Amino acid sequence: MRGAVIHAPGDVRFETLADPKILEPTDAIIRTAVTCVCGSDLWPYRGLDTTDEAHPMGHEYVGFVEEVGSEVTAVRPGQFVVGSFATSDNTCANCRNGWQSNCLNREFMTTCQADYVRIPNAQGTLVATDGHPAEDFLPSLLAVSDVMGTGWYAALAAEVKPGSTAVVVGDGAVGLCGVIAAKELGAERIIAMSRHASRQKLAREFGATDIVTERGEEGVARVKDLTDGIGADAVLECVGTTQAIQQALHSARPGGNVGFVGVPHEVAIDGQELFFSHVGLRGGPAPVRRYLPDLINLVLTGRINPGKVFDLTLPLEQVAEGYKAMDERRAIKALLKP
Amino acid sequence: MRGAVIHAPGDVRFETLADPKILEPTDAIIRTAVTCVCGSDLWPYRGLDTTDEAHPMGHEYVGFVEEVGSEVTAVRPGQFVVGSFATSDNTCANCRNGWQSNCLNREFMTTCQADYVRIPNAQGTLVATDGHPAEDFLPSLLAVSDVMGTGWYAALAAEVKPGSTAVVVGDGAVGLCGVIAAKELGAERIIAMSRHASRQKLAREFGATDIVTERGEEGVARVKDLTDGIGADAVLECVGTTQAIQQALHSARPGGNVGFVGVPHEVAIDGQELFFSHVGLRGGPAPVRRYLPDLINLVLTGRINPGKVFDLTLPLEQVAEGYKAMDERRAIKALLKP
Repeated sequence: MRGAVIHAPGDVRFETLADPKILEPTDAIIRTAVTCVCGSDLWPYRGLDTTDEAHPMGHEYVGFVEEVGSEVTAVRPGQFVVGSFATSDNTCANCRNGWQSNCLNREFMTTCQADYVRIPNAQGTLVATDGHPAEDFLPSLLAVSDVMGTGWYAALAAEVKPGSTAVVVGDGAVGLCGVIAAKELGAERIIAMSRHASRQKLAREFGATDIVTERGEEGVARVKDLTDGIGADAVLECVGTTQAIQQALHSARPGGNVGFVGVPHEVAIDGQELFFSHVGLRGGPAPVRRYLPDLINLVLTGRINPGKVFDLTLPLEQVAEGYKAMDERRAIKALLKP
Repeated sequence: MRGAVIHAPGDVRFETLADPKILEPTDAIIRTAVTCVCGSDLWPYRGLDTTDEAHPMGHEYVGFVEEVGSEVTAVRPGQFVVGSFATSDNTCANCRNGWQSNCLNREFMTTCQADYVRIPNAQGTLVATDGHPAEDFLPSLLAVSDVMGTGWYAALAAEVKPGSTAVVVGDGAVGLCGVIAAKELGAERIIAMSRHASRQKLAREFGATDIVTERGEEGVARVKDLTDGIGADAVLECVGTTQAIQQALHSARPGGNVGFVGVPHEVAIDGQELFFSHVGLRGGPAPVRRYLPDLINLVLTGRINPGKVFDLTLPLEQVAEGYKAMDERRAIKALLKP
């Protein structure tokens, strides 16, 4: 089979790789229907995460089950399945608490930009749809496996409630999916922070009621102008930089909440400042598995359409161009078709 | 009148001071029934907070209304009142949201170890009891004005729920009141971290089911032993040091919550570690005013008795000895009687 391999910053190649095999009785092999490039893939691509040796890439996937290990009974060959970027047995103490992305047997997916993928913990990770979904649904189902699930978690971690005011920091695919989530969870006012016309447009289409183009403390001041001077009830932080997290914390009102889903890179949070802010904070890799049945249903009933974040579609063999387009912000998110 | 004045670390004196006067139409003057020394008073006493010039001390009080400003109608001279260490107008946007300790007109109390005290924002701060409570209730009502209200907030911020497992880090008065709160909120298992026999005894009396004497990562390991290896649902951090906050964060399970009420002193929280922990975090000065009616009721019906944290009672003029006894950990908390 063939798949993407990163060799160094800026150097992603499409190469012939060994076909994946069942290694554990809890594995499944899927044939990739569609996959994509994630904003977090840009960290090593930009050299902000180190690449010591060449390795495959990709953690988002939907596809058709090819083969299952002897302990996998929840899905069977031929079924169309949606999973999560973090695999989970769905039986351990953390999974039972709903934190499947902290499963005691968790393995993060890392090889999905490829024709075939081995899924560890398949029994607790994969959810099959009823029959094979129409082609039109594939982008949104793919989004559910990561960015939509992550936006959903950000909104829940930020405790978006009916009638509340939500701010979304970050206008990448996760932030835009966060807008969808805030709207579905009943936010009355959704302030998207974005300075890119195409992303502002999509944010509005997804439910944003206000756009703030300023960043940093200027952006915070604009949010306060829109929220009686005190800040928003719920803030979804979807970037992971120090500036974005500060902006998020300062945009929340006393007693409000920040859900942070951008992987923090060298971020230190001042304890005393957090203390006196009264802001609640929760982050982490989204427990997508918890939301899969609901989110798949929302997609297949046409209620949400997160697949719109894919504004570039390429054959999988052009994966390098997908990275380049996202790095240069020519694309929000690149869909890859094997 | 007379009251406590700190001149330098270790140097608290009982001095003659000017009688407080109504300065704003929203003020009240109370005659102190009882007051006390707080763990946070030890920061300047120990030189960990600087004392640039001599100033009065104390922020905990219950007493009798002597005089009210022209805009104060909620309480009247002669009534017995309980307040909070943070004053609040109880009408601003933050107060309406229940965050009275972040009132837009907040003033922190700082002069309560004295015969008489001026209370700013009296209308929104003071709650009168029905008639004058019996002498026996005074310690517990005094505790409500700070340590019990703070322990209550810690438990709510940590999201203690019926049937949950709670850990309390810190065996000072706030931590011990946190045990009371966790029990009242229905925690099934309450693990108090303490290495002092007298405090362990009181923690058990208040509802602790387990005592952990180890500190730091050793203490965390003991908590994990008691919680299926994953950590506790709710952790109340009642100290404010880096070690205590780390211990609290590491003691919570993925998806659990830490409520932190010790004022953090030079604490930085690692963003990436917090992210991957999935632990929720909320702290701050407790919005005691929100809880006053309920907590006063719990005290006056005999359901809780947080006044037991006072294991030393002194005449107010011996306030310096109160500081000394607490600094040397001979006393948990010193009650002062004018």
